[in-house]
Amino acid sequence: MLDLAAADPPIAALLARELDEVTLAFERQLASELSAVNALCVHVEKYRGKMLRPTLVLLSGLAGAGKPCDGSALTEKHIIVAAVVEMIHMATLVHDDVLDEADVRRRGATVNHLWGNEAAVMLGDYLISNAFHLCSTAGDPSINLFLGSVTNTLCEGELAQLHHCNDFGLDEPTYYEIIRRKTASLIGASCRLGAVLAGADEKLADALQRAGIALGIAFQIQDDLLDLVGDVGVVGKTLGKDLSKGKITLPLIVHLAAADQRDRGAALRMIRDDDARALRQLLTDSGAVDAARCTARGFVDEAKERLAALPASPARDLLETLADSVVARHH
Amino acid sequence: MLDLAAADPPIAALLARELDEVTLAFERQLASELSAVNALCVHVEKYRGKMLRPTLVLLSGLAGAGKPCDGSALTEKHIIVAAVVEMIHMATLVHDDVLDEADVRRRGATVNHLWGNEAAVMLGDYLISNAFHLCSTAGDPSINLFLGSVTNTLCEGELAQLHHCNDFGLDEPTYYEIIRRKTASLIGASCRLGAVLAGADEKLADALQRAGIALGIAFQIQDDLLDLVGDVGVVGKTLGKDLSKGKITLPLIVHLAAADQRDRGAALRMIRDDDARALRQLLTDSGAVDAARCTARGFVDEAKERLAALPASPARDLLETLADSVVARHH
Repeated sequence: MLDLAAADPPIAALLARELDEVTLAFERQLASELSAVNALCVHVEKYRGKMLRPTLVLLSGLAGAGKPCDGSALTEKHIIVAAVVEMIHMATLVHDDVLDEADVRRRGATVNHLWGNEAAVMLGDYLISNAFHLCSTAGDPSINLFLGSVTNTLCEGELAQLHHCNDFGLDEPTYYEIIRRKTASLIGASCRLGAVLAGADEKLADALQRAGIALGIAFQIQDDLLDLVGDVGVVGKTLGKDLSKGKITLPLIVHLAAADQRDRGAALRMIRDDDARALRQLLTDSGAVDAARCTARGFVDEAKERLAALPASPARDLLETLADSVVARHH
Repeated sequence: MLDLAAADPPIAALLARELDEVTLAFERQLASELSAVNALCVHVEKYRGKMLRPTLVLLSGLAGAGKPCDGSALTEKHIIVAAVVEMIHMATLVHDDVLDEADVRRRGATVNHLWGNEAAVMLGDYLISNAFHLCSTAGDPSINLFLGSVTNTLCEGELAQLHHCNDFGLDEPTYYEIIRRKTASLIGASCRLGAVLAGADEKLADALQRAGIALGIAFQIQDDLLDLVGDVGVVGKTLGKDLSKGKITLPLIVHLAAADQRDRGAALRMIRDDDARALRQLLTDSGAVDAARCTARGFVDEAKERLAALPASPARDLLETLADSVVARHH
């Protein structure tokens, strides 16, 4: 998804170098005196992904600086913040893998069998703690305060999602509120911080944050779509997880809102029976999947409108390309 | 345990007023716009305890200030930091309640049946995030940096403990290293921060931190003893949890180190059979329980020696009383 070399080779090369720095800062931060801790941290590797959030910190720095895109706008604080947002994101991934007892009972030993729930919880906590510690090394209390409020919002989104687990009456506005908090807030924050650290004024920082939030909502809808209708060989992770975890996502909300009594009953039976294949077919046939795709596309368009408020630059163009790729991706 | 009124009524009354402020700051911080979040935060109530860490922040502030113990040494930052350390502590309690799949299988629906592992993880994360956010409102980056390194240490202790789960070769030095990190580091930090915020010099702050660390180690040994030989009606929580979670604690380490082949085999069989009653008897008869009690007492003595470096004051006397109460407590 984040192969930006085709779109702009020079900036892609610059980003690759900076992202290497981010990875170094990330690994340096997690290194422990205790070999037992380092042994468990090896498992963090399997969560390493697309580096979307660090990339947004860096690109927003370039786009918000109003300077040539030669990297001179990027500071040591960009590297720190980029590593911090990735660490926060990875902590949420690790903790998302912790299973409820119900799931354990239903799904048996298929998940987390290597090292169990407790290690996942502690490892996630270690990531969160190190994220805040690394953040503090930037020596800028406003970043701590801002990121603290962002992670509060993120956790509120996760808690609200859990509260609405198996709630088949969940409406669209509440769904957007949940994903805005749990996913889009950190992505928006990545954009804002990148810009602020490059000296952007409040107007530009705000535009980039709003672009990031819209992009984050589109990203989450696409993630939910892939879980429902993705190709397991391409996505590269277990699909149908939302269904078995009782997570209600946009295609289902759209379907249930438009369904008559019979269609509604059919969908609920498939959910009860954990029949992902049948549900996928039903939601595709009813047009709910397409409707969700269209909504995601709308949020990408909103992100691009927000980006249009920035001065023209190769970095801004790349952010637009990246926004498009969010809904085009298959993994 | 923390009924200090008998020892010093005026300071106890002062502490009670300040702790009310801490509780207010704590609750204000966790209040969310989302009713779903507030509904889950109600569960935090059941983890409210003795307020040991906030009490240490306040008492260390009084003892380290070198002023009359009238409370004039205590600042708004004391209240914030006291709420922060309690929030961090409560997050660890909530996350300690998350169970491994193995436990779930073994113990069935007896635990966490109300709201499950996932909610416990997210609620703990919400507490951690809010702790860091609240900490940032103090506007002092050095506190953020220090507490970030303390929570890193704390998590390392938890991870090391997990790494040594069911490790019957765990030796005393490694055990102390684990509990120093997972329990004593935050207690020591509470003492140091209380003193620093009251204007204490490095020598006093260091003495109080070291006293706190020794006290924290004694506290954890006593906690482990209560889990093994406590009276369930008095302790007020499920006992024998360490055994069923594979946590190796001091009495067992002492017993295994001194045991011959036969005694060792007997102990390991009791552990395998999850027979807490028999193990309790064995470790009591072998003298291992008394040896652990004696060690805890030694750490309390160390704490009191460290406190002796402080100028005499009613607050210092109260810290000594508190140190004694750590090993005298039955819950």
